[in-house]
Amino acid sequence: MRIFYDEMKNEFKRVLISRGFSEENADAGAAVFANNSLDGIYSHGLNRFPKIVEYLDIKKMNPEAVATCEMSMGAIEKWDGHQGFGPLNAKLAMDRACELAKEYGIGLVALGNNNHWLRGGTYGRQAADAGYIGICWSNTMPNMPAWGGTERKIGNNPIVFSVPKSDGNHVIVDCALSQFSYGKIEETKLKGQQLPVHGGYNEAGELTTDPAEIEKTWRVLPMGYWKGSGISILLDLMATTLTNAHSVQKIGTFKEEVGLSQILIAIDVKKFHSQEQIDAITEEMIADLKSSTPITEGGEIRYPGEREFATRKDNLENGIPVVLEKWEEVKGF
Amino acid sequence: MRIFYDEMKNEFKRVLISRGFSEENADAGAAVFANNSLDGIYSHGLNRFPKIVEYLDIKKMNPEAVATCEMSMGAIEKWDGHQGFGPLNAKLAMDRACELAKEYGIGLVALGNNNHWLRGGTYGRQAADAGYIGICWSNTMPNMPAWGGTERKIGNNPIVFSVPKSDGNHVIVDCALSQFSYGKIEETKLKGQQLPVHGGYNEAGELTTDPAEIEKTWRVLPMGYWKGSGISILLDLMATTLTNAHSVQKIGTFKEEVGLSQILIAIDVKKFHSQEQIDAITEEMIADLKSSTPITEGGEIRYPGEREFATRKDNLENGIPVVLEKWEEVKGF
Repeated sequence: MRIFYDEMKNEFKRVLISRGFSEENADAGAAVFANNSLDGIYSHGLNRFPKIVEYLDIKKMNPEAVATCEMSMGAIEKWDGHQGFGPLNAKLAMDRACELAKEYGIGLVALGNNNHWLRGGTYGRQAADAGYIGICWSNTMPNMPAWGGTERKIGNNPIVFSVPKSDGNHVIVDCALSQFSYGKIEETKLKGQQLPVHGGYNEAGELTTDPAEIEKTWRVLPMGYWKGSGISILLDLMATTLTNAHSVQKIGTFKEEVGLSQILIAIDVKKFHSQEQIDAITEEMIADLKSSTPITEGGEIRYPGEREFATRKDNLENGIPVVLEKWEEVKGF
Repeated sequence: MRIFYDEMKNEFKRVLISRGFSEENADAGAAVFANNSLDGIYSHGLNRFPKIVEYLDIKKMNPEAVATCEMSMGAIEKWDGHQGFGPLNAKLAMDRACELAKEYGIGLVALGNNNHWLRGGTYGRQAADAGYIGICWSNTMPNMPAWGGTERKIGNNPIVFSVPKSDGNHVIVDCALSQFSYGKIEETKLKGQQLPVHGGYNEAGELTTDPAEIEKTWRVLPMGYWKGSGISILLDLMATTLTNAHSVQKIGTFKEEVGLSQILIAIDVKKFHSQEQIDAITEEMIADLKSSTPITEGGEIRYPGEREFATRKDNLENGIPVVLEKWEEVKGF
């Protein structure tokens, strides 16, 4: 089943208004969810929407709270998200990081006590749309064991890097530090499929590609084994020491995944080089990647972010594929 | 065989002086190599030293060249390394990033046309020793296929994150974006061992743990499969657009791994919080990680950087383990 963008966005907007959002904030919030599904990141679009409604309903999230700047020192600022609507607060923080970058060449906003930003790539694209390099990450609830350990102690803390392209098809990496995001594991299970490579451990402590087995243990594999574990710890530690807000461990005591720590950095690369120079470098790099001999006949080497743009085009024209159960759930709110 | 730190450093210093280094630069350069071996990163200490001598001998590196600032805009600067001695230029650039961070809260130096910095962790520790959060990365020669491709097109571009601890045992991640560094693959082959997990492809296109098989194809596996591939592309693109110097692709045309692009970022976290607050956050996080139940009986969960500090202590007391063949090679220069 496929649903056109406007229908999906309007449905999200209706629900957000019914939960106390202003018309303007409901519109912006609905756009974030609908755009994520539009780009093919269903796990952070339609499939995540019911969870956000749940947070609103149990008062874990205040639709009226807006992030405020608490400390400012040159090119860095510390903000408090007041456990408001995560995506809007993160957008405000990246807006501010871009302003700081315009003034100082680089800007950093450390946003503590915010809620889930849904999809980090949103803010990477936001920076790139404004002409800046974007770097951002968020911590999460504890959802992976640290390397060598058994219990979930570290977050899959997504990290994002983006470089602007003048045609808008920016080069963007957005990845959780687990080999697979929870959304991907859930989606794969819903489809009755196996993961393409090992994604975690089964109850016998063996590596497995079965998403249902992984969900039984919650022992998700970090990207790159010990490497992803180490990077996760550092992203959490940097975010927590800069915000002095909530670490992954602390978030684990909240029962729900709220009050996260997020870092948003923008770099004004055009202080040094023109967008034309940046485009030339980028196009040369992409052309070189695409000149690779594919490992599978007829295969294609894509640059980071390219698939989302292709999916967006298809979904705009033909409607967004939905898991019927999730769509019905949203319509029932 | 184990060699004490001073003997190793003096041997390196003797060789560097014989290749045209000043007494002062030879001493600093020898310290970088000896410290890497001291920390147990043998691949970037003794085992790499002969390669650097080769570069000096074929005039791919000029021991007299020192990096200079080419453009400056607030908290960001663009430097040219003039293909000088990589570790010293990178140190100068991180020194400057720390100065900028002191003034603006954050500082970034984009260092183009530099040579191999050896071990990124050196500059992460440098920032942490000065009390700053450090973030840095370098591009490399093409040494991995992009995800879905066959030929080596992307770099294993190491990335480093560090957070200062007042006792000097900083939390530091330093990892190449290949699942294993070339140094580790070489070291494992020299020891006649297998890698603990898949590290690349054999000639039949199958994943393998055999370092000798991987060296035949050079098809090294990115950390986290497609994730490491995407991150590698973005780190290269950010470094190249900020320096307007050499991309991984361009470096691949140089025949030797020279003229790299490196980004050094320092963040003055103490503008917001005291070192005591940072220590409290860090110690709480470490204690939580260490409270994990180990997957193997008697196992220990270490924080990132901890092993290097333990190795350093052991190697200082008992001498640095060396591969005899490499040590004899250095003594013969």
